[in-house]
Amino acid sequence: MTASPQFAGQDPPKTYAIIVAGGSGTRMGTVIPKQFLLIHGKPVLMHTIEAFHRSASNPHIIVVLPPNFHSYWDELCIKHHFKIDHDLVSGGETRFHSVKNGLDIVPGNPLALVAIHDAVRPLAGAGLIDAAYSQSAQLGNAIAAVKSRDSIRLQKADTTVSLLRNDVYLIQTPQTFRLDQLKAAYLQPYDQKFTDDASVVEQAGFAIHLVEGEYNNIKITFLADLAVAELFLGQ
Amino acid sequence: MTASPQFAGQDPPKTYAIIVAGGSGTRMGTVIPKQFLLIHGKPVLMHTIEAFHRSASNPHIIVVLPPNFHSYWDELCIKHHFKIDHDLVSGGETRFHSVKNGLDIVPGNPLALVAIHDAVRPLAGAGLIDAAYSQSAQLGNAIAAVKSRDSIRLQKADTTVSLLRNDVYLIQTPQTFRLDQLKAAYLQPYDQKFTDDASVVEQAGFAIHLVEGEYNNIKITFLADLAVAELFLGQ
Repeated sequence: MTASPQFAGQDPPKTYAIIVAGGSGTRMGTVIPKQFLLIHGKPVLMHTIEAFHRSASNPHIIVVLPPNFHSYWDELCIKHHFKIDHDLVSGGETRFHSVKNGLDIVPGNPLALVAIHDAVRPLAGAGLIDAAYSQSAQLGNAIAAVKSRDSIRLQKADTTVSLLRNDVYLIQTPQTFRLDQLKAAYLQPYDQKFTDDASVVEQAGFAIHLVEGEYNNIKITFLADLAVAELFLGQ
Repeated sequence: MTASPQFAGQDPPKTYAIIVAGGSGTRMGTVIPKQFLLIHGKPVLMHTIEAFHRSASNPHIIVVLPPNFHSYWDELCIKHHFKIDHDLVSGGETRFHSVKNGLDIVPGNPLALVAIHDAVRPLAGAGLIDAAYSQSAQLGNAIAAVKSRDSIRLQKADTTVSLLRNDVYLIQTPQTFRLDQLKAAYLQPYDQKFTDDASVVEQAGFAIHLVEGEYNNIKITFLADLAVAELFLGQ
């Protein structure tokens, strides 16, 4: 393998993917958490892991799951003959704590690149995943985002005001960072304002850089989304 | 028919739907404008008209189309044996002008209720359509909106900042108004800040009221959306 010019004379940075499954499934009205629901007969989470495994970056994969689902996951892997190597880590109280638990097992090379990804976004394309690793090597981070297709209104006191649509980005995952940024950011105490991984890194003082996401890269939230995912994963 | 208490002793307000098709199709990479693309073998616009026709409100329907597509639409109606009664009006330079042209043929009862709807949102449910008419009778308007499922970032100068997701609404159509509000609002001169119908009415000084939209009520923007629409309209 030829090293890219940027890394001439040295190994390219190691890549990791922390795939976070925190969901309890209540919003779907299902008992089974969303990450275990089936798309074409296979759990959502396996499709998500495969998306990263298929990418050229081929990262080392760390799955974060609530501890009471670890043995269930092991059983699913046997049942579905799922062979992609990955570490399994226990989820915490919030997404912040879950990501932090995943980060704890990433070795300390500050130039390593870490994608954080929702377990319930199985449709992320290999092109997006690779572009995010590549940009984060250059700029420190890369946050998948698309422009809103809808007009936007913002709650202000007891009314709403319109925003200029062109100024609004809908944020997805992967959110990919150089390890030094992540390690510094996740030393901060937890703050309720942390809505996603980018907001944690932003709070630590790093500039956030967007990378073009994909409209198909939906988050499985409602049962209807499963049918949509099945449609796109069948293509 | 028993009049509701609100309208005891008088007819309920007349209902209208202005269905606006301005699209040129360039974003889809298709030559045919999006509103004429087929879902289950039938043009998108016909599905949209049917959604309103199926609602309990059963509004009088006004379709706004660029003038160079009027004869094509007439041919499509014959070809598809499409019998739902509607007026056909010429679109203008922007959505503002198109809506204004539609409004011009709505008779002057100030309590009439007018839904403005994107031709390329064929999945609007009858429940949403009726709820919007009902709320607009009470409050003056009803703008279909859903909470964002994604985190949001807002462009500020050369960077982006995170917003609290719970404060952000993605705005859909129908956007339904009492006629007196619409007529007053569309007397204003055109302003580039008019991103949707609510922003026009807001600029005229009326308070905007949201009504719970539907996540499935997507705007057909990319070819992949047609497959999604086919999936949901098949259910």
